Amino acid sequence: TFIRGMQTVTLIPGDGIGPEISGAVMKIFEAAQAPIQWEERNVTAIQGPGGKWMIPPDAKESMDRNKIGLKGPLKTPIAAGHPSMNLLLRKTFDLYANVRPCVSIEGYKTPYTDVNLVTIRENTEGEYSGIEHVIVDGVVQSIKLITEQASQRIAEYAFEYARNNQRASVTAVHKANIMRMSDGLFLRKCREAAEKHKDVKFTEMYLDTVCLNMVQDPTQFDVLVMPNLYGDILSDLCAGLIGGLGVTPSGNIGTNGVAIFESVHGTAPDIAGKDMANPTALLLSAVMMLRHMGLHGHAKKIEMACFDTIRDKTVLTKDLGGNSKCSEFTDAICQRVRDMD
Amino acid sequence: TFIRGMQTVTLIPGDGIGPEISGAVMKIFEAAQAPIQWEERNVTAIQGPGGKWMIPPDAKESMDRNKIGLKGPLKTPIAAGHPSMNLLLRKTFDLYANVRPCVSIEGYKTPYTDVNLVTIRENTEGEYSGIEHVIVDGVVQSIKLITEQASQRIAEYAFEYARNNQRASVTAVHKANIMRMSDGLFLRKCREAAEKHKDVKFTEMYLDTVCLNMVQDPTQFDVLVMPNLYGDILSDLCAGLIGGLGVTPSGNIGTNGVAIFESVHGTAPDIAGKDMANPTALLLSAVMMLRHMGLHGHAKKIEMACFDTIRDKTVLTKDLGGNSKCSEFTDAICQRVRDMD
Ligand SMILES: CC(C)[C@H](C(=O)O)[C@@H](O)C(=O)O
Ligand SMILES: CC(C)[C@H](C(=O)O)[C@@H](O)C(=O)O
Repeated sequence: TFIRGMQTVTLIPGDGIGPEISGAVMKIFEAAQAPIQWEERNVTAIQGPGGKWMIPPDAKESMDRNKIGLKGPLKTPIAAGHPSMNLLLRKTFDLYANVRPCVSIEGYKTPYTDVNLVTIRENTEGEYSGIEHVIVDGVVQSIKLITEQASQRIAEYAFEYARNNQRASVTAVHKANIMRMSDGLFLRKCREAAEKHKDVKFTEMYLDTVCLNMVQDPTQFDVLVMPNLYGDILSDLCAGLIGGLGVTPSGNIGTNGVAIFESVHGTAPDIAGKDMANPTALLLSAVMMLRHMGLHGHAKKIEMACFDTIRDKTVLTKDLGGNSKCSEFTDAICQRVRDMD
Repeated sequence: TFIRGMQTVTLIPGDGIGPEISGAVMKIFEAAQAPIQWEERNVTAIQGPGGKWMIPPDAKESMDRNKIGLKGPLKTPIAAGHPSMNLLLRKTFDLYANVRPCVSIEGYKTPYTDVNLVTIRENTEGEYSGIEHVIVDGVVQSIKLITEQASQRIAEYAFEYARNNQRASVTAVHKANIMRMSDGLFLRKCREAAEKHKDVKFTEMYLDTVCLNMVQDPTQFDVLVMPNLYGDILSDLCAGLIGGLGVTPSGNIGTNGVAIFESVHGTAPDIAGKDMANPTALLLSAVMMLRHMGLHGHAKKIEMACFDTIRDKTVLTKDLGGNSKCSEFTDAICQRVRDMD
């Protein structure tokens, strides 16, 4: 049912702790009076005609209509041949950019302070092409596929993102000294995008050098853009700098306004259903979602309430160093949201 | 000229600060009365018949004869078509294992303490195959090549290394969830080697997860073994944890006792010839070399003198936080070496 002034978002609660942390986000959104209504969908893969794996039609239809999704963790498939749900979702909705802001959280101690960077990962090709062969017995090749179109699209996205988010610089991360043609093409497209966005500073750096510099002084980085596998690595590394996947938001951006925001941690089956989960990563992903939808006021309010609660240290879940339940942490955030009015 | 009781090592001083730091190492070895005589060679690539790049015959002949080399930094080639000297050396001498111990240095502060791990990188294939094609306009493929033979060789090496160096565990680093066939083959060979070395604990971890865990708590890792590119990334990341390439040793191990030990930092042309360079990385690489040659006593002595000098903080080069010249730092280490007798 359509409610005036409300936007509908497809909610994929996910497995394990997914339903709990999704419930927490819904509660906090309600407290903040965010103009969002949720349409819950299950995305467990099904086999279509010809044995092809696909997400259920009603989930696909919901996403096609709403364009925006919020997603909790999904079980890694165990059966061989069963696809990774994350990969299937990226493919189904052509979610070509994975965006992960990594910002130090005041009061949550790690070896680093003042981290404030964003990794932008090409999400559709590269080492994830899935094309592999046995050449002769004992010799295997995997093909990394880099296209002009996908490289240009992600490079453009990175510069647009920098401009729209008041970020000063973009660093292209590559190994074009080794993969001269593929990473070379990627790099060339970044250089071309840089030419068109002279207001944003552009630098290039080898992936190994980025990793070395990152652990020595992450504050030197701003926006980083890179091919698929390098993004997989670097986004997790950067999440580690600010406290791990439990506090790191993530967004997958497609064309025509389609986007799915998600927490990238696991389903934590050992604590599922025990009211112990930390909803921060999903909540901050939902905050990214609000910004993507232009709802900056609500985004700011919820984000502040979350960060204030963590800085205050009175009510924290176990993984954050406290003794509180998921529901208590959620209520503390709700209270702060209400107090702001 | 052959001196009784002395072993000859091919010394490749390298470019930029290379000669200075090589000189420092020679001086310290002399103070320690290490039974090593040096045979200096230049390895600037030359073009052989058919335009093929190769290292000069007298350098090749020296290495073939001595089997052991110590190498300073080499200029990155600027001319297109000119090969990376590092890659050429690895190829010429089939240096299949790159070994980098990363151990926290007392007195040299970084965000981490008690790092004590070793990365073992497959050094001959994988993403470094150099095979790339344009499929159609705007579509490029790079081929990652994984062979049973090279995977088995590096896996065996990792377990032998662990055993010979009193290390308790080996972690295989991979992305076999994405590159099922190639990384799958690599992983299978690691599992097989693990079966043969039941005295060493074996674990497997995704590369992204390793990166995340590494920056959160590097003390959980011991020996890590991985394909070429992952090793390139992870070895630099780990160097960053203990203070960077200026203090990290490296060894490239081949078959039949051939090995080249090297500092992996750059040539630092800005400070070359100014007596400002830090010889630590090359010195610690030379210490690895001594151990490889079975000269454990001399290795221990030089290593202690180096670490004691750093811990003492009185005489340090600029990059280590001090005000001393390369020669003063070198003399301080020599003095400590002599005082040990
Ligand atoms: C689950 C896995 C397929 C995935 C990847 O490798 O991309 C994950 O690590 C991620 O970053 O989303
Ligand atoms: C110089 C370059 C070819 C090399 C590599 O990528 O392997 C370097 O980064 C290294 O680790 O030795």
